[in-house]
Amino acid sequence: MTLQDEIKQLAIEARDASRIMAQVPTPVKNALLRSMADALVAAVTELVEENARDLENGRDKGLSDAMLDRLRLDESRIRGMADGLREVAELPDPVGEVTGMWRRPNGIQVGRMRIPLGVIGIIYESRPNVTADAAGLCLKSGNAVVLRGGSEAIHSNRAIAGVLKRELAAKGLPDGALQLVGTTDRAAVTELLKQEDYIDLIIPRGGEGLIRFVSENSRIPVIKHYKGVCHTFVDASADFDMAEKICINAKVQRPGVCNAMETLLIHRDAADTFVPRIARVLGELGVELRGCSETCALAPEIKPAVEADWGAEYLDLILAVKVVGSLDEAIAHIQQYSSLHTEVIVTRDYPNSQRFLREINSSVVMVNASSRFSDGQQFGLGAEIGISTTKLHSFGPMGLEDLTTRKFIVFGDGQVRE
Amino acid sequence: MTLQDEIKQLAIEARDASRIMAQVPTPVKNALLRSMADALVAAVTELVEENARDLENGRDKGLSDAMLDRLRLDESRIRGMADGLREVAELPDPVGEVTGMWRRPNGIQVGRMRIPLGVIGIIYESRPNVTADAAGLCLKSGNAVVLRGGSEAIHSNRAIAGVLKRELAAKGLPDGALQLVGTTDRAAVTELLKQEDYIDLIIPRGGEGLIRFVSENSRIPVIKHYKGVCHTFVDASADFDMAEKICINAKVQRPGVCNAMETLLIHRDAADTFVPRIARVLGELGVELRGCSETCALAPEIKPAVEADWGAEYLDLILAVKVVGSLDEAIAHIQQYSSLHTEVIVTRDYPNSQRFLREINSSVVMVNASSRFSDGQQFGLGAEIGISTTKLHSFGPMGLEDLTTRKFIVFGDGQVRE
Repeated sequence: MTLQDEIKQLAIEARDASRIMAQVPTPVKNALLRSMADALVAAVTELVEENARDLENGRDKGLSDAMLDRLRLDESRIRGMADGLREVAELPDPVGEVTGMWRRPNGIQVGRMRIPLGVIGIIYESRPNVTADAAGLCLKSGNAVVLRGGSEAIHSNRAIAGVLKRELAAKGLPDGALQLVGTTDRAAVTELLKQEDYIDLIIPRGGEGLIRFVSENSRIPVIKHYKGVCHTFVDASADFDMAEKICINAKVQRPGVCNAMETLLIHRDAADTFVPRIARVLGELGVELRGCSETCALAPEIKPAVEADWGAEYLDLILAVKVVGSLDEAIAHIQQYSSLHTEVIVTRDYPNSQRFLREINSSVVMVNASSRFSDGQQFGLGAEIGISTTKLHSFGPMGLEDLTTRKFIVFGDGQVRE
Repeated sequence: MTLQDEIKQLAIEARDASRIMAQVPTPVKNALLRSMADALVAAVTELVEENARDLENGRDKGLSDAMLDRLRLDESRIRGMADGLREVAELPDPVGEVTGMWRRPNGIQVGRMRIPLGVIGIIYESRPNVTADAAGLCLKSGNAVVLRGGSEAIHSNRAIAGVLKRELAAKGLPDGALQLVGTTDRAAVTELLKQEDYIDLIIPRGGEGLIRFVSENSRIPVIKHYKGVCHTFVDASADFDMAEKICINAKVQRPGVCNAMETLLIHRDAADTFVPRIARVLGELGVELRGCSETCALAPEIKPAVEADWGAEYLDLILAVKVVGSLDEAIAHIQQYSSLHTEVIVTRDYPNSQRFLREINSSVVMVNASSRFSDGQQFGLGAEIGISTTKLHSFGPMGLEDLTTRKFIVFGDGQVRE
């Protein structure tokens, strides 16, 4: 069988399985996820052995220590994956929910019912835990899933997928509902992206290169998350203690993630006081500050920023800082450089808080809270399948509901159109 | 300026204008649409003159009478466009609606606010009224719009867009919010589909060829509607009078539209009675029936169907008819041949009605009503921008709300993440 036929076959099997999965009752899906969790824990030895092969290959290929660490599976991480599946089992099932129903003058009742999307393709890099996390979310929401992980984790991913597929079969469900692309041939991705007749959505998870490749080559709709260039704007009226606490949390608590702050904007009327203060405290915490000329003049720790600093996603203890003359200027700066991820205003001014909320068109807009809250779990959506920074279908952190769509349902008693 | 630069420039202007449009208060948008309606009526002479140039070119090119009729603008059709804009002005504005708000244990309040998508591209064929209809819906929902009509209507479209743009300017709004691609060069479409940095959504409206071209060449998300192969299933327990009325309406009332019935499925237990009856009555109404061998044996008017009849979108007085042995067989047939548009069951059996509603994954599923109701206006959504038969973002008839997305808003009082 050619690679082309193989990928098409796998997509068709997933599509066929998705029709069955769409009808599986909630308790059966929950029991499935719990069995999968138990089976992963029971397979620790096998999983660690397969993972060791990936780690060895990774060392031979000269992967960095950080990469090898992301790749590593040990008992505690496997228990973590299992706990993730059990948590998803606890979440409410979105499928079948009727989100509204109304009566038309002719007496027909029109409503909208939530249904699974169908088949979801996940294309991801290195971390093998995504195999279990993504499978859990897709199956719980009644979808089939096609997984394509990175080649460096192929043995781990095959082993995890194998364990999960056995549980599908054991529950009398089609194991085609969980497909792992078993080859590391890159051409398989290109083929996968052509299966628009069978796959309903592609979610790429990884670096910007992967995401651009997927979105430029896919005939299937893609939900993208390029990067997080999160801004915090400290308004003239801000409570400076609160602003300091929020800035420290947003920059330092976990700098390597997409909801960390990358640019700090400070209102000119607050600059004399707040710039030296925040420069000192962040400097003490090891943050390198790069600022506009006004901020540099106010605090010697701040190095001059260059144009590339505005819009940079450092994912590190580096922060761009800029003084702005007004809320308008802050909004204009954010609109120019934002990645549509998360923006924060710290203010005591009611009209300014409302204007910021309304006028900023990023996926998450916050008043007086740390951008680090921008996360499906923190928002109460449960586990998250990703964060969308494009506006179609979903915008912002995506939970189970975002893996569904709504169909119209109509109850009549013989009505015909005039 | 090259075509490439020209299209990019136009997309950037639309993007810039969209940021202003997103903030325009509802009463101003409504007043704008009403002025546009008045201006179209006031420009009847100009519009009819420009349309005459298109009609003349169309005749020279040998367009069919049906095509020329679709292209034609007269005073009554222009008043129709104006009325359409006035109706959209009356619809509720979806922008700014907070669709939910909840409190997290740490005290932050998380909600979701409806915002415009940004810039919407509409690529359409022949009917010049789409220029006004699409512009009205996009502007009312706070978006900017880029319109690309068919070359055969270029003078009409330019004239209509010119009238509408003048009204934007007269209200002090950016006339870049309504862009018409003024060239008939087909390469302009390809360029438009590359503007993913500025355009948020493409909606193609036209034949299957246009839609395939757009979806295969677009880097921008596309909402597609390929075709409508609507099924009606007459169950064993159906009220045959009701079934007859529904079938006649679904097939005959307006056969050339996508929500007309194309295939009729009849339960074997109803076939002896219902097949001869419906064959006779539809035959008298001029419908050509093409059936499976069982139906042919029951009614001499029915010609044998070939495989291509299942799944055919006739858009004409032709109907495929098939006997099925069970609800399961009906559902399997529909899943195999459906275009995910609209499917109807006629039944008196409660469990069957519920199974059909749940298991059919088309965008509209009806019990005991004509498929001809599958329409935004009939469902009470107001005017419709199109019908989506793909599941992402929207599924089924699309109204104003489908031209928006939701961002997360967060109200805190200084919370930071542990």
